[in-house]
Amino acid sequence: MALPPGLTESRFSEALEQFASAVGSDWVFSSDEDVALYRDSYSVYWGEEEERVASAAVAPANVEQVQQVVRIANRYGIPLYPISTGRNLTYGGSAPTLSGSVVVDLKRMNRILKVDDERNFALVEPGVSYYDLYNYIRDNDLRVMLDVPDPGWGSPIGNSLDHGCGYTLSPFRDHFGSHCGMEVVTPEGDVVRTGAGAVPGSDAWQDFHYGAGPTINGLFAQSNFGIVTKMGFWLMPLPEAFLIGTVTVPRYRDFAALIREASYLEDLYLIGMPWYTSPASGGAFIGTPPELAALMQDGWPSTGQLEEFVRAKGVPAWSLDLRFYGPEETVRANWAAARRRLAAAIPDAAFEDHDLVELPIPRDEETSFSHKPEVGIPALDAFMLVARNPGTTDDPPDGHADFFAMLPRTADAVHSAARVFAETYAEVGFPPLHHPFSIPVSYYSRCFIMGTVVPTWRDAERNARSRTLYERLVARCGENGWGCYRTAPAFQDLVVSQYSFNDNALLKFQEKLKDGIDPNGIISPGRYGIWPASMRNNRA
Amino acid sequence: MALPPGLTESRFSEALEQFASAVGSDWVFSSDEDVALYRDSYSVYWGEEEERVASAAVAPANVEQVQQVVRIANRYGIPLYPISTGRNLTYGGSAPTLSGSVVVDLKRMNRILKVDDERNFALVEPGVSYYDLYNYIRDNDLRVMLDVPDPGWGSPIGNSLDHGCGYTLSPFRDHFGSHCGMEVVTPEGDVVRTGAGAVPGSDAWQDFHYGAGPTINGLFAQSNFGIVTKMGFWLMPLPEAFLIGTVTVPRYRDFAALIREASYLEDLYLIGMPWYTSPASGGAFIGTPPELAALMQDGWPSTGQLEEFVRAKGVPAWSLDLRFYGPEETVRANWAAARRRLAAAIPDAAFEDHDLVELPIPRDEETSFSHKPEVGIPALDAFMLVARNPGTTDDPPDGHADFFAMLPRTADAVHSAARVFAETYAEVGFPPLHHPFSIPVSYYSRCFIMGTVVPTWRDAERNARSRTLYERLVARCGENGWGCYRTAPAFQDLVVSQYSFNDNALLKFQEKLKDGIDPNGIISPGRYGIWPASMRNNRA
Repeated sequence: MALPPGLTESRFSEALEQFASAVGSDWVFSSDEDVALYRDSYSVYWGEEEERVASAAVAPANVEQVQQVVRIANRYGIPLYPISTGRNLTYGGSAPTLSGSVVVDLKRMNRILKVDDERNFALVEPGVSYYDLYNYIRDNDLRVMLDVPDPGWGSPIGNSLDHGCGYTLSPFRDHFGSHCGMEVVTPEGDVVRTGAGAVPGSDAWQDFHYGAGPTINGLFAQSNFGIVTKMGFWLMPLPEAFLIGTVTVPRYRDFAALIREASYLEDLYLIGMPWYTSPASGGAFIGTPPELAALMQDGWPSTGQLEEFVRAKGVPAWSLDLRFYGPEETVRANWAAARRRLAAAIPDAAFEDHDLVELPIPRDEETSFSHKPEVGIPALDAFMLVARNPGTTDDPPDGHADFFAMLPRTADAVHSAARVFAETYAEVGFPPLHHPFSIPVSYYSRCFIMGTVVPTWRDAERNARSRTLYERLVARCGENGWGCYRTAPAFQDLVVSQYSFNDNALLKFQEKLKDGIDPNGIISPGRYGIWPASMRNNRA
Repeated sequence: MALPPGLTESRFSEALEQFASAVGSDWVFSSDEDVALYRDSYSVYWGEEEERVASAAVAPANVEQVQQVVRIANRYGIPLYPISTGRNLTYGGSAPTLSGSVVVDLKRMNRILKVDDERNFALVEPGVSYYDLYNYIRDNDLRVMLDVPDPGWGSPIGNSLDHGCGYTLSPFRDHFGSHCGMEVVTPEGDVVRTGAGAVPGSDAWQDFHYGAGPTINGLFAQSNFGIVTKMGFWLMPLPEAFLIGTVTVPRYRDFAALIREASYLEDLYLIGMPWYTSPASGGAFIGTPPELAALMQDGWPSTGQLEEFVRAKGVPAWSLDLRFYGPEETVRANWAAARRRLAAAIPDAAFEDHDLVELPIPRDEETSFSHKPEVGIPALDAFMLVARNPGTTDDPPDGHADFFAMLPRTADAVHSAARVFAETYAEVGFPPLHHPFSIPVSYYSRCFIMGTVVPTWRDAERNARSRTLYERLVARCGENGWGCYRTAPAFQDLVVSQYSFNDNALLKFQEKLKDGIDPNGIISPGRYGIWPASMRNNRA
């Protein structure tokens, strides 16, 4: 049995008994096989000493029990690591940042407290999954649409607190950005409500997010400032229709204008998530086809070479799916306006219409519908991602550690990042995945994400190589001014260390805030680089 | 000369000399006549002992000088009160929360650092006004549109940090919500950058707002956690066209459906700020016409009486302006869709078309254009507000203290609030302004604001009555679960005390955060109810 740092086995047993009296003995898990369920099956340190493992888990049923658990943990000096539901694969699973922490598993707190389809919000507990919420909405014929991440088994609270994102209109794609109102158990066991919810008797908790005075909500995402026990989310009212329009552009250099026009449409809220692909490179998210690998053999090709490559191949250099949401009049007009603007901006741009889809999708057609997350239907199709990865199909990994660099929305930044990624893969001896046609994703509306999928293994030697690749990517991107937005605990200190302006002033400020509200360093020590004062030397 | 609390005159003189050596002696203001310029000319305590007045002001020219000022203040224990530019009328002006504070006047830091009309953002310093930024955009023919508050002489940084709001599409109306990236001098004199800006060499500071780990940005609004020295804002790309469509509905009870449909359009980003009026009551923002006052003489009228009142008057009960932004195809389609939905939802709804306006407005037509803030043109027309107020035209006050209650978007809440306002005015003996046709404003998209304008005076006795009214409004709204979003320092403790859930748990948490980062309690003591540990007994 793992132990919390500094605790004797007998003290820990005593604490577990107290946890049991708080939540019921069925809901304290300390046997090896139970605790093993909280291991990160995608760990980059699987089976090694550095793998982060829990000492036990405890599953409270309500806010009062969460408070009791926190107070017991304070008395015994036991670090807690709260999780919601779902798997959190590629971001560390359910395993804590600090080995020996007790996982606080909030899966029992799974009530959907309210969904309002006139004011368009939901209020939920951490154990509610996107599937739960979706089914509730459909079963009750509510006229709202979810924005769901890949995959759908996760928790709206957990996903948003991890800065997760989705596929529809930008204000809803940013899952944390679209929350309104929180209830939080503080590291000392108090209960705080934010926004209008702090006014006793308020009926506007999910309507007004600020309240009066500073908002503390941002502190609870990717962090260790409290345990969120309720959270509200603004929902999209169900649009009447969904329409995809595809534009393709012939030249390599057209990418800049394509991005400019898509940004215009996006920033005016005329489209959902713009979806870029590159027909010239086969259209895959990542992977380098042989003919392109050949072109890259003598270094990064010139723009002239790339234009010639595209011409010879006879396919468009770039393609962009525009996704429209709204009344039929609106989606058709938005597509007409987009065509007009794109045709004026990019000579020889070509357009493809798709069928208009009426919403909601009938329930018996959900499974066969090919754009599920785009219309708010939770799915697990994203698990095809690694299988689709051309570099790994004949040698599928045991898991993956996704890496994301955050770029400005320019063609130059995308091409620069593709080159840095390609060079880093080559340096570390990994098969090439990135090339001059690598495309960004747009989960966040105002920036681009350049992502890649680093394989993880049950094999320590292969994992060591993956770690080297991942760490090199973080460092090389940092040198270029590109931070990451999310990562597993194994890489959090490193990722945060790229945000080092003025001798890590931001982190130091966060640490002082942390010291003010968690004097015993109870909640998730080390999460996203924030260690309590007593453990600050743990930082890599 | 006022002195900072606990400082002798000689110690203060010494500190002023140090300020002068940091910022230049021309930029330290301590004469009575200079310091008087920082008085709040709308103060509800004008000329009384409780009026909050500064001891001096200091105007740094750059971030380094702000750091020096903060460090000097820490050495001497001098409370600082940072302001940006503009007047902040009705919210306390430039006067500090704690008398004797030194105002840090950031007007000299007035550089527009960047405006990008492809990525659609601006990066500015605190001394930049909306007028400055607007003129820069027009002078350089940049294809972006501002969202401006009433009035336009304020600072985007100051306004957003006060949770100010505007008139266009909802993500831009929420001025704090549309910021991306901050630079802050901490209470101990360090400099922090947030979001992607914390990565050295980042070109994505105004593109990616989160960074990795918790976001601290919310802490700097309506608070005292630091001095914001730079801030980025997401801007609306210039829409090609602006169109207003007016819908009127005949019956009193149609208000509920009107709100429901407007919320649908708003939450799908098809319209900007919905603008409700009530033709049945004359259409004024506030004020009760005599015939309506007569109807109310025997108490709050029944719905039947109100329906009869409307029918007899022969005008619509309610009117709603829908404001569309986008390409011509889009704005016409959105209006068509809105008409279709409203006609289906509300029998006898009537529609009025207005001329489509191409954007930008030619510069020589700006002054005569009648919807300036709606298309991002800064103005000072809002100063007509008090003159327009029927209760005060023949006895214009010296200023006003605006009161805003935050409600859910329902007709029931609006009518309940109107009744509470009316009863409170009557209790305190003020002329009636509110009635069953009182309308909400929608600066924030997901909730309603029920607002009123309390007069302030250079006369202590009249001011005392105004304070009673204001305080009674805060308390009565609090009893009904409605908090306020913004207020002058004189009312901040009271307003914050309505957000009292669980024995003021939120405020206690904020205080602990404050203690962690401002051990000497230097920045804006008492702002929005947050006092440093040594002054916590100051709270009302």
